[in-house]
Parts: sequence; structure tokens; C-alpha cells
Amino acid sequence: MRPIEEREISQAVIDRLPRYFRYLGVLKEDGVEKISSQELSTLMNVTASQIRQDLNNFGGFGQQGYGYNVEYLHEEIGKILGLDQQHQLIVMGAGKLGKALINYMMYRNRGFLFRGAFDTDPSLWGKTVGDIKVYPPDELESFIKENHIDIAVLTLPKNEAQAVAERLAAAGIRAIWNFAHVDLKVPSDVLIENVHLQDSLLKLSYKIRSYERDK
Amino acid sequence: MRPIEEREISQAVIDRLPRYFRYLGVLKEDGVEKISSQELSTLMNVTASQIRQDLNNFGGFGQQGYGYNVEYLHEEIGKILGLDQQHQLIVMGAGKLGKALINYMMYRNRGFLFRGAFDTDPSLWGKTVGDIKVYPPDELESFIKENHIDIAVLTLPKNEAQAVAERLAAAGIRAIWNFAHVDLKVPSDVLIENVHLQDSLLKLSYKIRSYERDK
Repeated sequence: MRPIEEREISQAVIDRLPRYFRYLGVLKEDGVEKISSQELSTLMNVTASQIRQDLNNFGGFGQQGYGYNVEYLHEEIGKILGLDQQHQLIVMGAGKLGKALINYMMYRNRGFLFRGAFDTDPSLWGKTVGDIKVYPPDELESFIKENHIDIAVLTLPKNEAQAVAERLAAAGIRAIWNFAHVDLKVPSDVLIENVHLQDSLLKLSYKIRSYERDK
Repeated sequence: MRPIEEREISQAVIDRLPRYFRYLGVLKEDGVEKISSQELSTLMNVTASQIRQDLNNFGGFGQQGYGYNVEYLHEEIGKILGLDQQHQLIVMGAGKLGKALINYMMYRNRGFLFRGAFDTDPSLWGKTVGDIKVYPPDELESFIKENHIDIAVLTLPKNEAQAVAERLAAAGIRAIWNFAHVDLKVPSDVLIENVHLQDSLLKLSYKIRSYERDK
């Protein structure tokens, strides 16, 4: 099999990679060793040619007449997604959403280590969420430096999020996983991935309305 | 101003509508009465022509030389998004994520009324999360019917999600807001909006890896 070629790939392909990774993970868990693009196509409800095109972006992984080696493909896509690298995370805001994310995500993602949470509420300082300790904001910069934190999870109210994002950027954070209901403005070397829950719910509401109008 | 024309609009435009709604909501809160497409463009970091094109899908809302009436545009986009209609929600799974979503979303979305939660754990039955009572799965079908539930929020482990989705579909639910780490297969008249948190985190990981490779 050819080594992974690294070229510019489109956002649409990148958006689909985690889904390939997810399906291949399930196949691997189920003990499936190889799969054809046709079988994967049926399973994932995308065309086989789409799958071949997508995977060709990374030099392909398939062998004519054999299909894809599930474990190998899963591992290679994992590498493309950067999962051969560990990330150190902090959570900004130990409110309900912050707590839920810590509890929900921390046991599920071995490459993503939750190291601490920060909150302005003094009654939370020194307490733990899961195994994670809550610290006062004063200690943010030194904590980031000492623990090589590269990702901050932002679960703050929208009116606090921008100022905290700027402080995180100045402290040298690499990326922000943003749950605040606002688009953050940060230097372009700070990477952002948004989870706008309210926007998602509005899209569902739109779909319901369209469906009822058209039926 | 012209009435809203209802035509087939692209997924990309639909994806952008909640963001327009969000920005216009902030402007309205801030007491801004009108805004030009140029000003909105700067604020939202999209081109003014993109904004004009997007809003023209709904018959436009602007007046030459005046700009957009913020309150009117906010209200009209709200209607397009179906926010003039109330939705009745249940949450399937009263675990950590389910609880967090109830607490996090219920006070923020007047059009989305959380009416109950369902869990297989008997120790939760009759207890409340926020103001929301937890019910046993046995009561699901009658509860949906009696309370005119149209949206189910799925916060179940991936191996339980598909069976529950089928049961919800059979019980006449209109839409599923899916947080389970799996793509659901349901009849096409059941509308789905996925929030795949893990996929989102993998995208962030990919961005970090690409950034570090290219710098």
C-alpha cells in the first residue's frame, strides 16, 4: 500500500473524515477485517465512487479486488485526524455544560486529556468534576504553560466568551472548542471549532417547518 | 417590503440562517434599528453580496439606500426558521449529557418546551431534572400522544440509539435531535439533526495537525 500523500484537501472531505473513522471503528470492534468500497457505501449511505475519491485524497488505501483493510484504514485515518498525538485540554466554565462535557467526553477520548477546569465562582475552586479540579482564573496562564495545554473548551455565557478567548490566545493556546453562543474573533493561528447548539436546534425547527409546508 | 417568497433554497443558505438570526438578535438587544448589508458584512465576516444573495432567497428585506430593519429582519428570519411555532420536546436518556442539555437549553429557547425525560434506570423515575420529570420507557408512546411531543432529543449510548429511534418513529415523533455517536436510520418523514460531539473534536484535532505540519 502506498504511503499517505499529504496535499491540500477540501473542507468537505475533512468534514467527512470523522464519519469514516467512526464507521471503521465500529467495523473493527465487530471483528470485520476487510470491506469493499461497495459495502462501505451501503453502510454509510454514500456512493462507492465518493468513498474511493475521498480516500484517494490520502493516496488511497484499497487494493483492487480485495477492498480495504479495516484496521489499517482506521489507523491511517486516525493519524490523518491527528489521533497519534495527545492533546491537553482545559475547560473554561465549570457550569452545567462544562461539567457535562467533562464527564461525557473524558472517558471516551484517550487522545484528549482533560487536565483542569476554570471558573470565576470561588465556591468551586479546589472542588473536582469527575477527576478534574476547578481552578481560579488567576492561575490560567501559569497552568497553561506548566501543563502544555493546547486546547481550551469554552462553555461560557456569550458575553464573557470573547474576552476569555483573547486571554487564551495571548496565553499561547493552540485551539478553542467553542460552545459559547457567539463567533469568536481571535488571531488566525488560534484554531476554532464551533458547536453552536442553538443553531443546530434552529436548523431542526427549519426542517420541521419546511416539511409541514411541503407535505 | 415584499412578502416572503417560499422557494427551494440550498442547504448552504439554510445552514447560514441561524447565524443571521443570532447576529440580528444581538443587534436588536443592543438597540440597533437598521443596518446596511455592508455593516452586517463586516460584523459577520461574510461578503455583502453574499448577504444580499442569501436574503434575496426570501424575497429580500432591504430597501435601497436604507439598509435592513433589524427587528423586522430578525422576526422574519425567525418565522422562516419556524420559531413562530412551539415545539414540545422529550429527552431520551437522563444521564449526564441529557441532564446538561435540559438545564442548559430549557431556559434559553422559549419556542422549545422540554416536557419530560425518559430513562431505563428505575432510580430516576419520578425524580426531576430542572423542572422536568423522568419517566419509565413504558410510558413513552402514551406520553408522546397526550403531550403532542414533536421533537425527541437523543442522548443515549450508540448501541441503544437505533432501537429507540425506531420506537420514536413508530410513535409518531416528527424530528430527532441526535447526540448519540451513530447515524440513525429512520423513515424519511422523521427529520434528523445530528450533533456529533466526537466528530467535532476530531475536526479540531485535524486542524491542529494540519497547522503544525504546514507552519
